[in-house]
Amino acid sequence: MFAFDIRHRCPRTSARGGVLTTPHGAVETPVFMPVGTQATVKTLTPDELYEIGVQMVLANTYHLHLRPGADIVARAGGLHSFMNFRRGLLTDSGGYQVFSLAGLRKITEDGVWFTSHIDGSRHFLGPEGAVQVQEALGADIIMCFDECPPYPCSEEAVSEAVRRTSAWAERCRAAHTREDQWLFGIVQGGVYEELRRRSARALKEVGFPGYAIGGLSVGEPKQDMYRILRVMDEELPAERPRYLMGVGAPEDLLEAVACGIDMFDCVLPTRLARHGTAYTRRGRLVLRNADCREDFRPIDPDCTCYVCRHYTRAYLRHLVKAGEILALRLLSFHNVYFLTRLMENIRGAIARGNFPEFRRAFLETYQDQRGPG
Amino acid sequence: MFAFDIRHRCPRTSARGGVLTTPHGAVETPVFMPVGTQATVKTLTPDELYEIGVQMVLANTYHLHLRPGADIVARAGGLHSFMNFRRGLLTDSGGYQVFSLAGLRKITEDGVWFTSHIDGSRHFLGPEGAVQVQEALGADIIMCFDECPPYPCSEEAVSEAVRRTSAWAERCRAAHTREDQWLFGIVQGGVYEELRRRSARALKEVGFPGYAIGGLSVGEPKQDMYRILRVMDEELPAERPRYLMGVGAPEDLLEAVACGIDMFDCVLPTRLARHGTAYTRRGRLVLRNADCREDFRPIDPDCTCYVCRHYTRAYLRHLVKAGEILALRLLSFHNVYFLTRLMENIRGAIARGNFPEFRRAFLETYQDQRGPG
Repeated sequence: MFAFDIRHRCPRTSARGGVLTTPHGAVETPVFMPVGTQATVKTLTPDELYEIGVQMVLANTYHLHLRPGADIVARAGGLHSFMNFRRGLLTDSGGYQVFSLAGLRKITEDGVWFTSHIDGSRHFLGPEGAVQVQEALGADIIMCFDECPPYPCSEEAVSEAVRRTSAWAERCRAAHTREDQWLFGIVQGGVYEELRRRSARALKEVGFPGYAIGGLSVGEPKQDMYRILRVMDEELPAERPRYLMGVGAPEDLLEAVACGIDMFDCVLPTRLARHGTAYTRRGRLVLRNADCREDFRPIDPDCTCYVCRHYTRAYLRHLVKAGEILALRLLSFHNVYFLTRLMENIRGAIARGNFPEFRRAFLETYQDQRGPG
Repeated sequence: MFAFDIRHRCPRTSARGGVLTTPHGAVETPVFMPVGTQATVKTLTPDELYEIGVQMVLANTYHLHLRPGADIVARAGGLHSFMNFRRGLLTDSGGYQVFSLAGLRKITEDGVWFTSHIDGSRHFLGPEGAVQVQEALGADIIMCFDECPPYPCSEEAVSEAVRRTSAWAERCRAAHTREDQWLFGIVQGGVYEELRRRSARALKEVGFPGYAIGGLSVGEPKQDMYRILRVMDEELPAERPRYLMGVGAPEDLLEAVACGIDMFDCVLPTRLARHGTAYTRRGRLVLRNADCREDFRPIDPDCTCYVCRHYTRAYLRHLVKAGEILALRLLSFHNVYFLTRLMENIRGAIARGNFPEFRRAFLETYQDQRGPG
């Protein structure tokens, strides 16, 4: 039912191209997963995701646990049926949200008490509960409940988070019963190399079919993230899928692929769209800018997406300024398309053996004009 | 380039089925036009409108004049190109908006000074200007600049509005130069039969290829609207298209079709969608209601639209409660589909000669549970 086959290896970096087989189809890796926090990739339909070529979507356990509740989703036949998405689904464990988003939390050895952002009610989530909720949601890949420390954070606090994450990983594995789901462990350890190694080794000892790297892209300098990725490349089993959580900036995707990462998720493409910003081959385009007012070119002349084939910057700028929902739809579509094509091109370059050249050429023309991301 | 052919006449009512030929294709009548105020039918793409079977869309001159400006739209190649909609387009004249929406207005014989709702800037719109802006926008059918009085309104004030509307109609006709556009006159007169007759006769004297009925569905009792429609049926030329502005409730569409109306527009289907309400064959469905929580049926089991084929009430309720844009998209799609199918069925019934039976059967099961319309 599940498999991970590496088909191509870059001879000069750790990049690899493979196929992740799930009960809902084969996923070519490296893969970017757009985020469908509340059982919808914001503004887009599943049919549009298919048209874009999206192979897998991430949904958030924390949000769906609170609303509509995993029981409703289970009665609907699981998340695939509920949201009408028939390809791969992955749920996070809720750990990141209860540690970073939910207010008034209280941490115990068994999990976390937290306050719902919706109605202020008190809830508890721990390793067994997070697995139970994720089994009810029914994604193809589910995640261990972990403690994701903030950045910056003292080595002592991160060490404690690693200890707890390792203990919870063992409990998650014991609690997991569904054979049509893969449960991944999550490495923590912040920017501390030794803690990262310790965390990875503890998870390997428990043994998982895949390993995620959490707690990066949380505010640390990019060079620290890249340094940790190189450490992870040494520590994580080479034959298992590796998933870098919450990373989606094009330059980071390229760097992480070079360190052997196979899977990514990030809210960036849909969030940038909601801020009226579009990816182009040359960097980000802010459509509110006055120079788009009478610019009748597409967002990106090199792009072949539905939006770039039918709409001008002038029209999109008008929609953004008028607050029209169609702007969010069209920009979300384009941005997810852009990252999906980037990953496709990365896979092609790995297969052809020229990933380092592809990466260099891409970064030469792509200028990351930091927007409101 | 333009024609209006009546092909079927109901033997027992004034209902008729016809074809309105425009430079952007043939429109089967009676027809419902969804509203694309700011050059987009809120939340929907043109491709979705084609899939639904929408034949013609109304856009608002007032809004597009203020933003992005008719000059930009003209430089984009006109409204069809700008918004990428290749079927029929109709623009209103802006009269309704400057009289009812725009604050601090000052009325003169030449037009209206008003304050922009966007930035408070002062603008002037009169008969010549409204035609000029609409020629720049380039819709297939454009409207005379009219004065739409509020409801209730004294007979004297409505009489004055009729006088001004008639004078402006003549000036609009004189100002209109594009031969690839049809200019329609607009009858005013509130709920006063004699004023309605006077207004219709004045417009007929000027002579237009089509006639609109404005100033109804602005708060008056339904019976007053229906009474005026019967008067209009007597006054308006039988062979010219008749357009009832701003009407879209199913029961009103049926009544107006019986009075020989051929065209309708209304924001209701998209506005109801934004309030989380969907049309069904039995009446309106409010998705926030708790009884949708575990209702895994489609919105309307009789509906064949994309939404009803793929989504449950439970999922749509979740999206509405979570504030997800996909909810607005899916409900807008369904509601426009519902009215488009209703008009299609009305046309079929007229062609078969059993429109009165169709109307009775529809109203027997359709219960208008007034929502937040």
